[in-house]
Amino acid sequence: MTYTLILLRHGQSEWNEKNLFTGWVDVPLTEQGREEARRAGELLKDADLLPEYLFTSRLQRAVVTSAIALEAAGRTWIDVTRDWRLNERHYGALQGKDKAETLQEFGEEQFMLWRRSFDTPPPPIDPADRWAQTNDPRYADLDEVPRTECLKDVIERLVPYWDAEIAPVIRSGKRVLITAHGNSLRALVKHLDGVSDEDIVGLNIPTGIPLVYELDEDLKPITKGGQYLDPEAAAEAAAAVAAQGSAKPKA
Amino acid sequence: MTYTLILLRHGQSEWNEKNLFTGWVDVPLTEQGREEARRAGELLKDADLLPEYLFTSRLQRAVVTSAIALEAAGRTWIDVTRDWRLNERHYGALQGKDKAETLQEFGEEQFMLWRRSFDTPPPPIDPADRWAQTNDPRYADLDEVPRTECLKDVIERLVPYWDAEIAPVIRSGKRVLITAHGNSLRALVKHLDGVSDEDIVGLNIPTGIPLVYELDEDLKPITKGGQYLDPEAAAEAAAAVAAQGSAKPKA
Repeated sequence: MTYTLILLRHGQSEWNEKNLFTGWVDVPLTEQGREEARRAGELLKDADLLPEYLFTSRLQRAVVTSAIALEAAGRTWIDVTRDWRLNERHYGALQGKDKAETLQEFGEEQFMLWRRSFDTPPPPIDPADRWAQTNDPRYADLDEVPRTECLKDVIERLVPYWDAEIAPVIRSGKRVLITAHGNSLRALVKHLDGVSDEDIVGLNIPTGIPLVYELDEDLKPITKGGQYLDPEAAAEAAAAVAAQGSAKPKA
Repeated sequence: MTYTLILLRHGQSEWNEKNLFTGWVDVPLTEQGREEARRAGELLKDADLLPEYLFTSRLQRAVVTSAIALEAAGRTWIDVTRDWRLNERHYGALQGKDKAETLQEFGEEQFMLWRRSFDTPPPPIDPADRWAQTNDPRYADLDEVPRTECLKDVIERLVPYWDAEIAPVIRSGKRVLITAHGNSLRALVKHLDGVSDEDIVGLNIPTGIPLVYELDEDLKPITKGGQYLDPEAAAEAAAAVAAQGSAKPKA
């Protein structure tokens, strides 16, 4: 018995386009992001990998990406669970800040530490900051909303959720689609593939290209790293994401 | 303690536009239908009636209407349950047939009986018919997919679902949005308002206009019939739906 799991990172959001740190700020998709979502749905349809159950974060860029992709794939009707534990990493006090300006202000070493360190979170956001999630109705069921997170924090909230909520649906035999974010998907891939704390730093997941895992009966990947439905586009996109880190601020 | 319940009938579908009987056939929205959905979301936002939980049928015209309306209202992130018990009435052997041709072939009396009778279903659809839901993955969890339904049949599947699944969410204090269909919403309104078997025949619910009920602690409407967010448009639209029944086939 094997299972199929599909991971999908949301398409371009308005703040991706503007090069701002986003985190838990609930920014809409751009038209390009919507187009990426449609294409993802068509890839799923063409590969006959039709999702049977959907998990998304609470953030609209993931919710809307999944809705558009499922419409393109003809699967609008499947059951869905949304949960904050699939949210992007909370970017702390950097949320709403320009990436290029932050790089200039703090220098490349500090910048890359905040972006890619496994266990160093950015400074916590002020609860009164306009980009904090204080009293956000999306998180009314949370005792305390995060004020910053490193990748390790994301893993610590995501893996118990995987075990308790996602794994049982996969084991029930349903083909699960998870539509989420760069860092929540990196956290999941790290868990599934057993990537080391060091190696996860260099792993980038491109937007809008379904990543398909075949899992064995212990929900371990049969092929490490899974398989992108459009491997060429995925390789290009991953390279572009990696290059972002060294992008110099515009003059 | 009172509760707010919002009912929304999906916008125009491709078969509404073509004047075909639709029932359980999973037809997409037209561009006009999408526009109706956006407008519904804006009405909810303007009235500060933001949904906190969504129920939809399994049919894409309801699923997509709710997704577009929630995006327009800024509430993409709420939890959602989809269930076949909110589906449109199954239209039996009439599914896929032209309404005007059916009227011409069978005469006005038989036509109106199928369209509006409380307890006379159309002839059952042949399971081999291309518009039957035989082996439809949407209904894999059903022992038997309906082959035809009258409004009474819809009530008999919908009211137990209301009691078991929807009412508890309302009682939990969440503002519930139900996005469904002409006949499943008529069935619900009949139940809530205690409309007689005779009077429900003349009751039409317009597409794309949120109908808001305030419910008392026994989940009985405080004002019978609820309140449309755009009462003028609702009255016009209801009159247009009623007129459909007497529309003569084009020469």
